[in-house]
Amino acid sequence: MGSNRLEAFSDGVLAIIITIMVLEMKVPHEPSFAALWALAPVFLSYILSFIYVGIYWNNHHHLLQTCKVVNGRILWANLHLLFWLSLFPFVTGWMGENHFAPLPSALYGLVLFAAALAYWILQQAIMATQGETSALRSALGRDWKGKISPLLYLAAVAVAFYATWLAQIIFAVVALIWLVPDKRIERFIQKGA
Amino acid sequence: MGSNRLEAFSDGVLAIIITIMVLEMKVPHEPSFAALWALAPVFLSYILSFIYVGIYWNNHHHLLQTCKVVNGRILWANLHLLFWLSLFPFVTGWMGENHFAPLPSALYGLVLFAAALAYWILQQAIMATQGETSALRSALGRDWKGKISPLLYLAAVAVAFYATWLAQIIFAVVALIWLVPDKRIERFIQKGA
Amino acid sequence: MGSNRLEAFSDGVLAIIITIMVLEMKVPHEPSFAALWALAPVFLSYILSFIYVGIYWNNHHHLLQTCKVVNGRILWANLHLLFWLSLFPFVTGWMGENHFAPLPSALYGLVLFAAALAYWILQQAIMATQGETSALRSALGRDWKGKISPLLYLAAVAVAFYATWLAQIIFAVVALIWLVPDKRIERFIQKGA
Amino acid sequence: MGSNRLEAFSDGVLAIIITIMVLEMKVPHEPSFAALWALAPVFLSYILSFIYVGIYWNNHHHLLQTCKVVNGRILWANLHLLFWLSLFPFVTGWMGENHFAPLPSALYGLVLFAAALAYWILQQAIMATQGETSALRSALGRDWKGKISPLLYLAAVAVAFYATWLAQIIFAVVALIWLVPDKRIERFIQKGA
Repeated sequence: MGSNRLEAFSDGVLAIIITIMVLEMKVPHEPSFAALWALAPVFLSYILSFIYVGIYWNNHHHLLQTCKVVNGRILWANLHLLFWLSLFPFVTGWMGENHFAPLPSALYGLVLFAAALAYWILQQAIMATQGETSALRSALGRDWKGKISPLLYLAAVAVAFYATWLAQIIFAVVALIWLVPDKRIERFIQKGA
Repeated sequence: MGSNRLEAFSDGVLAIIITIMVLEMKVPHEPSFAALWALAPVFLSYILSFIYVGIYWNNHHHLLQTCKVVNGRILWANLHLLFWLSLFPFVTGWMGENHFAPLPSALYGLVLFAAALAYWILQQAIMATQGETSALRSALGRDWKGKISPLLYLAAVAVAFYATWLAQIIFAVVALIWLVPDKRIERFIQKGA
Repeated sequence: MGSNRLEAFSDGVLAIIITIMVLEMKVPHEPSFAALWALAPVFLSYILSFIYVGIYWNNHHHLLQTCKVVNGRILWANLHLLFWLSLFPFVTGWMGENHFAPLPSALYGLVLFAAALAYWILQQAIMATQGETSALRSALGRDWKGKISPLLYLAAVAVAFYATWLAQIIFAVVALIWLVPDKRIERFIQKGA
Repeated sequence: MGSNRLEAFSDGVLAIIITIMVLEMKVPHEPSFAALWALAPVFLSYILSFIYVGIYWNNHHHLLQTCKVVNGRILWANLHLLFWLSLFPFVTGWMGENHFAPLPSALYGLVLFAAALAYWILQQAIMATQGETSALRSALGRDWKGKISPLLYLAAVAVAFYATWLAQIIFAVVALIWLVPDKRIERFIQKGA
């Protein structure tokens, strides 16, 4: 079993997640600035989550390119990742509708943490099929982004109850870290090809 | 007509089913633990159904790999399966919102039963195109999982009205049985290739 | 431009249409037979529309197989067809929620008629690119199904205001006519291949 | 990384956007002409947005055909475009539900403008990978449609507060301009092939 259908299915799920998040931004019944302004927090949380799903889609694509053979473990590790990503619309909506209150912000961080963990598990599952000289292993190198992100998410969860704005800054900073394109795998693949 | 477009369409439907189920977990208007806790049953039923759709996606993929030619019978047997799977978001939401009450739990089991039956019909339709020496037939062997699951679903339906928790345990156990990867078809395909 | 991306996009839209229709079946808040029974008309209309979308997906697939080159006219004829099909969830929900009342039933028939017309226009657009010896033209033959269906839909629209049950019977009968697999194109393709 | 998965993901997102827009057309609880008539503005705005998404899908497809290599810049420029398009269901619903009131109409124009800008950025990103003799650059020629549309959207935004009907006419006219198939890229690709 090749990775094509895995990619196609994941693409489908990610495309739906990124699109239904916008449904949490309920159409107001009044055509006023005030009604629009009331949606600002939901809109901000939507932008944040849109970027995160975009990052996951991007990284996921690069990850699967190094994956030639798909076994049951990879398949379920992938579904496990999609499960946590599927909670994005919920936590995004909850955080936005409650104006970035402490508890929803902490939950948002927790889901980000779980998704990062799930991504790491998927990475391990793919490496396991490739043996010691894994192309992915060489490509990842020290993988400092992958290691620091979960820690920062946990820090945001803890800090959310004391200074919620700081948790939001952490979410934004981690997104920025990843937005800077990850040349590592790309470079490696080009060398190999 | 090859099985590619059938696979792509089924992937699309399954990706949407697995993702819109999360919409039944309505975003609460309060940022409190109590509001989150109230969603626990919906969340649990979501996890259960996510795993079931994952199992169907996995098995469906393996099944279609043995299918070289698609005729009208296979096509409609496949749509028939998708029909029952499309009811998952409804029965999942109903069971979750009503805290695993007897009737919704029984209906959940009934839809699982109907989906299992539809899967079996699809399997038969594919085998029928392959004749006596069907690759799928050899791969399936005795197919004990496929035979025992519908019986367990029916048992859960019956038991739901007397001991709902037992029905839930049956749902979880059948999911676990399938989660153990089905090596049979995989092995056969590798031998053949 | 080949027909692959046209097919993939249409598949995506059809997969979403067939799946979001189920969202019109709102999860009841009570775990009772009465609450479930109240949904019966919505469920029946869902089954009817599921079959119709399935028929369109099936025929659409066969149609595009005869289409080697896609031009702007075909592309917009296809989007025009998808537009009418995208109204299925709305008219299905309206007809179901109002227990097959005359006006919603008539509108349902009108949308079926418009979709049939759009399909015919798409067929013409594809034939136009193939010239006199069009493979599709030969495959279609007299196309009695394609000719009789719009007339029956119109009859159902007219009759809906006097005897709604008769309109429903017409909808079911036309669906049955199409469910019988259309061997014409299939046969032709196999001969050609 | 080829442009295939970028296309598939974009197709998925566009297919979902075009389909969930119909969900803003809430199913009325009464089977009357009055209830249907009340939805007329939502329906009209739905038609307008359906055509716009269709135009974007069409142009996007032609654009990506000229794109052989995908880098991080193109990938994020594409996600940026999808972000603005993902706001279509929201602004469409808001404009429709409020009977084309000034503010929602202006916001609709603003989102159209942002999407046009994002499309232009994506075009630039693709050209940048192709160097001076860019196939896309030659194909686009003077690109008068791409240059005049954003200006017209801005004009509609400004005019919406004084004469909303004029803003709607501008939206319709720009859509018509694009509906006339863009032969430029198509012609170029056929010459090159």
